[in-house]
Amino acid sequence: MKRWLVVWLCWFLTAASGWADLLRGTGDLGIVIERSSGQVQVVDTTNQRSLHSLSGLGDLSHAAAVFSRDGRYAFIFGRDGGLSKIDLLQGLLVKRIVQAGNSIGGAISQDGRLIAVANYEPGGVRVFDSQNLEPVADIAAVTANGQSSKVVGIVDAPGQQFCFSLFDTSEIWCADMHQPSQPIVHKFRAGDHPYDGLITPDGRFYLAGLFGEDGLSLLDLWHPEQGVHPILSQYGRGEEKLPVYKMPHLRGWAAAGELLFLPAIGRYELLVVDRRSWQEVGRIRVHGQPVFAMARPDGRQIWVNFALPHNDTIQVIDVPSLTISATLKPGKGIMHLEFTPKGEQVWLSVRDEQRVDIYDTERLQPIATIPANHPSGIFFTSRAHRIGF
Amino acid sequence: MKRWLVVWLCWFLTAASGWADLLRGTGDLGIVIERSSGQVQVVDTTNQRSLHSLSGLGDLSHAAAVFSRDGRYAFIFGRDGGLSKIDLLQGLLVKRIVQAGNSIGGAISQDGRLIAVANYEPGGVRVFDSQNLEPVADIAAVTANGQSSKVVGIVDAPGQQFCFSLFDTSEIWCADMHQPSQPIVHKFRAGDHPYDGLITPDGRFYLAGLFGEDGLSLLDLWHPEQGVHPILSQYGRGEEKLPVYKMPHLRGWAAAGELLFLPAIGRYELLVVDRRSWQEVGRIRVHGQPVFAMARPDGRQIWVNFALPHNDTIQVIDVPSLTISATLKPGKGIMHLEFTPKGEQVWLSVRDEQRVDIYDTERLQPIATIPANHPSGIFFTSRAHRIGF
Repeated sequence: MKRWLVVWLCWFLTAASGWADLLRGTGDLGIVIERSSGQVQVVDTTNQRSLHSLSGLGDLSHAAAVFSRDGRYAFIFGRDGGLSKIDLLQGLLVKRIVQAGNSIGGAISQDGRLIAVANYEPGGVRVFDSQNLEPVADIAAVTANGQSSKVVGIVDAPGQQFCFSLFDTSEIWCADMHQPSQPIVHKFRAGDHPYDGLITPDGRFYLAGLFGEDGLSLLDLWHPEQGVHPILSQYGRGEEKLPVYKMPHLRGWAAAGELLFLPAIGRYELLVVDRRSWQEVGRIRVHGQPVFAMARPDGRQIWVNFALPHNDTIQVIDVPSLTISATLKPGKGIMHLEFTPKGEQVWLSVRDEQRVDIYDTERLQPIATIPANHPSGIFFTSRAHRIGF
Repeated sequence: MKRWLVVWLCWFLTAASGWADLLRGTGDLGIVIERSSGQVQVVDTTNQRSLHSLSGLGDLSHAAAVFSRDGRYAFIFGRDGGLSKIDLLQGLLVKRIVQAGNSIGGAISQDGRLIAVANYEPGGVRVFDSQNLEPVADIAAVTANGQSSKVVGIVDAPGQQFCFSLFDTSEIWCADMHQPSQPIVHKFRAGDHPYDGLITPDGRFYLAGLFGEDGLSLLDLWHPEQGVHPILSQYGRGEEKLPVYKMPHLRGWAAAGELLFLPAIGRYELLVVDRRSWQEVGRIRVHGQPVFAMARPDGRQIWVNFALPHNDTIQVIDVPSLTISATLKPGKGIMHLEFTPKGEQVWLSVRDEQRVDIYDTERLQPIATIPANHPSGIFFTSRAHRIGF
C-alpha cells in the first residue's frame, strides 16, 4: 500500500507542477505556420524560443490567423476551408472544422465572440461562435440577380461589423453582427473585381484592391452614405494585367504616421501615399517586386520583402528620409515578417533555410534563430488588440 | 492508511484543479485601484467581473500602473514611493519595495526588462529589474551647477529609452538604457517648470506641460538635434496661475486620427489641435473643467470627465462633427476611464458610489457594474503592447 501511495503522490505532484509550468501570460506568444507539413509552432517572444508544436491542421498554404481577446487561442484559416482553434498555453488543437471547399482568410468580431471566414468555394461568409466553432450565420454572397461570388478581404470593423469584398459581383459589403444569427448587410458598389481588402488601423477606411481596373476602392465607414470612392487611379496603370495570384496582398501595406507605403504592381517600387488626401506623394525604388511592406510599430522604419528571384533579401526604408537604410540577405525564401508590439524585434520566416530569424530592429542584426519546417506566416497575440487584425 | 491516501488524493486533486482554474489568457485582464484602502482588484473584461482582490499596497492616491510584456504582471507606482509587482493570474503580491519618499509614476522599457520610477523626493529616476525589482541604475536629476530636481512625466520611448521632465531645472532628459547600469542621458532645455509629460502613440513626439509659462514644450525624438520647440503658445494664456496639483494631467489627452484633444487650463473647454501643424484648430465648449479626455481606440469618440463640482458627469464628443453627442450622469466622483483595446466597452470609476460602471460605447448604455472601494485608476493589460503606456 505504501508503494502505491508514493506512486500516486509522484503522479499528482507531476500533474500539479505541469499545470504550474503552463501558468503564464499570453501577451508575448505567437504562432509560426509550417506550411508544407500542416504544422504550427507556438513561440514566445520574450525568450525567443518555441514552446509547442501542433500538427494535423490541413493545408496551410496562405494560412492566416486571428486571436481570441484574451490571447489564449488562435483561430487558423487554411486554404482548404479548414478552421482550427488552438490553445497556445497547452499547445493543443481544441477543434478543427472544414467549413468550406476553399477559403481565403477570416476575422474575429470586435467583441471576440464571432469568427467569420471568407470563402472562395462555395463563396459567401460563414460565421461561427468563437467558443465552440458552432455555426451562427451564413451570409450568402448572392446578388439580386442570383449571381454568386467569391469573397475576399474580410476584416473586423468597429460597431461589431465584418467588411469584405465580392470579387465576382464587384461589391463591398459590411455585415452588422449585433444579432449574430441575423446579420444586417449594407452593400456598396465597388470598382471592377476587388481581389483583396484592408482596413486602416483606426477602423475608419476600408480599401479594396482591384483586379479589373486601375486604382483602388475606398469606403469611409464614418460616412457610408457617401458610398465608395475611386482613389489612386494611377495604381497599376501602364502595367500588363497579372494573374490574380500575382497581385500584391493589400495586407502588405504599411501605415506609418501620415503616410502609407504600398507595393507597386509589377514594378520594383513602393508607392508613398498621404493618408489625409489619398494622393501619391512619392515612389521609392527597391531591390525587387515588393510583396510585404510592413511598418515597425513606431512608423520609423518600413521592412520590405520581395518576390522571386529576389526573395532572399529584405530592405529597410528609413521613413524620415524616405531612403533605403539597409539591404539584408537573411537567406532564401523570406515569406513573411512580424514585429513585436513595441517594435524592438522583427521575426522573419526564411522558408528555404528552414528557420525563423529574429532581428534587433535598431542594430539591424540577428539576435536569435528558431528551426522551423518551411515557415510561412508569423502572427503574434498582440493582434488580438488591434482593429483589422 | 487508506484514509490518509484519500485525504492526500483529495488535496492533490484540489491543487491540480486549482492550477487548471488559473490557466487562462491575460489579454483581457486589468486592474482597478481602490485608493483609500490600498487595495487592487484584478478584473476580466470578457466576462466583466472581478477575479481577485489584493491588499497591502500602501498609499495608492494618484497610483499608476504598467504591465509586463506577457501581460501577467502589473507594476504599480504609489504616491508614497512604493513599487509593487502583482501577479494577475494568481492574484498575488509578488514583491513590494519602497524606493523613494514620494514618487509620481513610472514606465516599463521597450524590451520589458526595466522599470523606471520618477521621484519627487529625493528627485531623480530609479531603475529596477522587472523580474525581481532589484536596483539597476539611479539617475540623479542633478544639473551641472549641483541643483537637484523633482522628476515628472516619465515615459518609455523607442530605442530602449526613458524620457522625462525635470520640474525644478526646466529640462527634458532621455536616458538610453541599452547598458542598463550605465544609462546614457541626453539633456534638452525645456520651457519653464514642466509639470507633466506624454509621448504620442507612435513614440515620436514628447510633450511637456509647463507650469511657469504658457504653451508646451515639444521634442521630436526623430530629430533630437533640433532641440525643444515651444508650441501652442495660447495654451493657458490669460488664465490665473493654478497650483501644480490643479494643472490637468497630460496623460488625459486624446489622439484621434489627425487631431489631439486637450483640456483647457481653468476653462470649460477642450482644445482641438492638428497633429501635423501643432496648431489649435478649434475649441469645444463642455460641461465643466475637463480632467481626462480619452479617445475610443478607433478615434471616433472622445469621452471626457470633469473636476468638482461636475465630477458626476461624462460627456461624449462625436469626432466627425466635433459636437457633444451625449451627456451621461453615471454618479458622483468619476475619477478615471479606460477603454477595451477594440473600444466596444469603456470602464468608469465612480468613486463616491463605490462602483465601476461598464458602458457599451455604441449604445452609450451601462452593461455591467462591479462593486469597488473608492475606485480610482483603471488599467488594462493591452497597455503592455503600446508605446508610452
